Amino acid sequence: MTLYLHLAQLLGERIEQGLYRPGDRLPSVRALSAEHGVSLSTVQQAYRVLEDSGLAAPRPKSGFFATAGATLPALPAVSRATQRPVDISQWDQVVEMVREGPSKHTVALGCGMPDITSPTLKPLLRSLARLSRRLDMPGLYYDTLPGTPALREQIARLLVNSGCRLGADDILITAGCHEALSCSVRALCQPGDIVAVDSPSFFGSMQTLQGLGMKALEIPTDPLTGISLPALELALEQWPVKVIQLNPNCNNPFGYIMPEANKRALLSLAQRYDVAIIEDDVYGDLAYEYPRARTIKSFDTDGRVLLCSSFSKTLAPGLRMGWVAPGRYQEQVAHMKYIGSGCTATQPQLAIADFIAGGHYEPHVRRMRGQYQQSRDEMTAWVRRYFPAGTRVSRPRGGFMLWLELPERFDSVALNQALKGQGVQIAVGSIFSASGKYRHCLRMNFAARPTAQIEDAVRKVGQTAAQLLAAG
Amino acid sequence: MTLYLHLAQLLGERIEQGLYRPGDRLPSVRALSAEHGVSLSTVQQAYRVLEDSGLAAPRPKSGFFATAGATLPALPAVSRATQRPVDISQWDQVVEMVREGPSKHTVALGCGMPDITSPTLKPLLRSLARLSRRLDMPGLYYDTLPGTPALREQIARLLVNSGCRLGADDILITAGCHEALSCSVRALCQPGDIVAVDSPSFFGSMQTLQGLGMKALEIPTDPLTGISLPALELALEQWPVKVIQLNPNCNNPFGYIMPEANKRALLSLAQRYDVAIIEDDVYGDLAYEYPRARTIKSFDTDGRVLLCSSFSKTLAPGLRMGWVAPGRYQEQVAHMKYIGSGCTATQPQLAIADFIAGGHYEPHVRRMRGQYQQSRDEMTAWVRRYFPAGTRVSRPRGGFMLWLELPERFDSVALNQALKGQGVQIAVGSIFSASGKYRHCLRMNFAARPTAQIEDAVRKVGQTAAQLLAAG
Repeated sequence: MTLYLHLAQLLGERIEQGLYRPGDRLPSVRALSAEHGVSLSTVQQAYRVLEDSGLAAPRPKSGFFATAGATLPALPAVSRATQRPVDISQWDQVVEMVREGPSKHTVALGCGMPDITSPTLKPLLRSLARLSRRLDMPGLYYDTLPGTPALREQIARLLVNSGCRLGADDILITAGCHEALSCSVRALCQPGDIVAVDSPSFFGSMQTLQGLGMKALEIPTDPLTGISLPALELALEQWPVKVIQLNPNCNNPFGYIMPEANKRALLSLAQRYDVAIIEDDVYGDLAYEYPRARTIKSFDTDGRVLLCSSFSKTLAPGLRMGWVAPGRYQEQVAHMKYIGSGCTATQPQLAIADFIAGGHYEPHVRRMRGQYQQSRDEMTAWVRRYFPAGTRVSRPRGGFMLWLELPERFDSVALNQALKGQGVQIAVGSIFSASGKYRHCLRMNFAARPTAQIEDAVRKVGQTAAQLLAAG
Repeated sequence: MTLYLHLAQLLGERIEQGLYRPGDRLPSVRALSAEHGVSLSTVQQAYRVLEDSGLAAPRPKSGFFATAGATLPALPAVSRATQRPVDISQWDQVVEMVREGPSKHTVALGCGMPDITSPTLKPLLRSLARLSRRLDMPGLYYDTLPGTPALREQIARLLVNSGCRLGADDILITAGCHEALSCSVRALCQPGDIVAVDSPSFFGSMQTLQGLGMKALEIPTDPLTGISLPALELALEQWPVKVIQLNPNCNNPFGYIMPEANKRALLSLAQRYDVAIIEDDVYGDLAYEYPRARTIKSFDTDGRVLLCSSFSKTLAPGLRMGWVAPGRYQEQVAHMKYIGSGCTATQPQLAIADFIAGGHYEPHVRRMRGQYQQSRDEMTAWVRRYFPAGTRVSRPRGGFMLWLELPERFDSVALNQALKGQGVQIAVGSIFSASGKYRHCLRMNFAARPTAQIEDAVRKVGQTAAQLLAAG
């Protein structure tokens, strides 16, 4: 761990332990520099991390102060490394989540749904309806292999926000980020190949690796800064890693944004060991800060980063609209797209292109960012209120997912089972690991506007968890 | 070749050579039985084949007569076997077809588009528009893994027409038949596995096998009756074939419907050698005869047939709506669907379910069947008029594809090249083979209502072909 991250962690723990209450002045930069024997700029970097985590805030000419964030629950632990690449299982638990649809009687805290009730989505529905109204409508034709040019152009424009300078020709449209990730892995790997991943990791990517016969090498990952670069380097030295696959912005499920310096360092590592990077940016536009964080792809100079994303989290998942900017692997990824699904549905592409070109995307995403940030605070407060003491909670900086860590002996699969009769469902932690770790963890969705019904659901989860812990 | 097929071919050739003119009485069943030393029922079977091919027609109590079909051009040859499983290439030629979209300046005779201008499609567009009109519309949600129950139920009802007794739970929705085929192959095979295929074969399936690292074993295929069963049996004896993949109804590109007896015999073979069958039925509902021919799946008793189809040819391809009834492989195919694209778009599923439930599917398909049959005759006449003498032509019994065979030395790739400046495009024959055969063949689409513009395009293709042949 670098010096400033170490220092940030140390200070963060002191704040969380209550040594500093909200509003208390924190040690000066100079004092800490002397105390820890590090440079002034190292301390400043550490404070920036604390700021990003919502634990400290600067006041002009007065130094740093502990914030309300100091009342946050403790963070989940840094994930531990598996010692070797492993085959992935847990399909039985994933399929339980994806086989059943939404039900009026269940609060599905485990699902990946964004809130799709915002009026800022209306222009999209109008476009969809307008496109359908004419006979011989363009949405009935086969699309071209790369996807509709109108949409690819709009995506290229949006990508400027994350620092990417790409053209429409650099982009392939896919059926959601899911197909983008799947085509990327298939373009790069053969069965048996090793893929290094952040951990915990989106269960969909885990299953994709499993289904394609790849092995996952889980790299320890920090809940605030992402994949551990020293551990990754060690892995690259020890194993013939083919690809690094990760989700650095508004990570699912941890919610961190990987620091820019780490992104650059990761890219250097990939260059040094000549491996490709599959970058999942599906939550990237939902970062609470503006302007949003850059992608690793934005630093890519030799086309080794395959940037995958979609409109499933920003607009609506039922449209199945994603994309990939595959860099130097464009030809292979296009082939994999062709053999997987032929081409993409036309009408939603045209409708989304309309929506963006009409200037509706930015206001919509801005509104959702604000809503999700508020819901995060609400959800975090509920977890504090209703979950057993000692529950560790992530501090998402974007998106709408909260990650909870309970004591090691806790079993989230048993929890989900116990919740079935109560009309609540959560995502069990074990599906976020190739090796079945994180069974004591769970993920909850806070996309919907907070309601008494949701609070009640969270209360049920917390209380049931407490009962299970007491019984176990 | 069986006796009756041999006899049918012999008689067919005589009719085609002009020994019998349209309206002439053909030899009696009794006379032929004596002449060829075969049973009466063998002759009757042969006449049934001639009837199916449009070469002969029975008159009550008067025997069989040569029909207008006697003026048809000769059939393409039975395809020859490759001696061994081969790797598939030709991606460069396929990508040329699928990279470019439709253009006002090009008559795309090579594409797979159905006619989507029929007013019988209007209720579908109305459903699409109606679904889009409400906020919080159901089409914005993630679908479940198997697909929307409403659509699966309707598909199960439609499948009764092809003899299948399946329930909604036996069906998975996919992004077109393309994804259905791709998931099926991936569920059954590992890279290096051998898949026996009819030949010529849909280029999309060829590319899927290639992209997944399978080897294709091309089995000789008759332009009237489909895959050769003796040749298939020999292949099953010689090679460790994992799957038989074929397109028995309204075959693409030959247009034949495999006789029911052959379908049963093929299934027995598959049982004997314990291999699975992937049955592509994407054109099946477009058979000109009513009721439509049964699927191999309809005879399946032990779940070894994976039936793949879609609405791309019957309704519209831009919707990307297909399905698979994977029999005993359901769990594996569902997993492959999940890792390939997660789930399917929701809105078009609901719209199509509406369309079928509203009773609009049958009238639409009936209308299209009639139109395509007429267009086939028109297109066949144009080919006779404008193509070099000796051009062999398929006799489709469904769908909207014509397959042309020119002399061996002819090069359809050069033809397509030469047509570029003339605003016409055809599908080159070589992409329908794993081993680059059929370069002297081409496929043309006759879905659109015949117009002077299309006739002009066919004339250009024919004349350019003649010029190339003269120059070569």
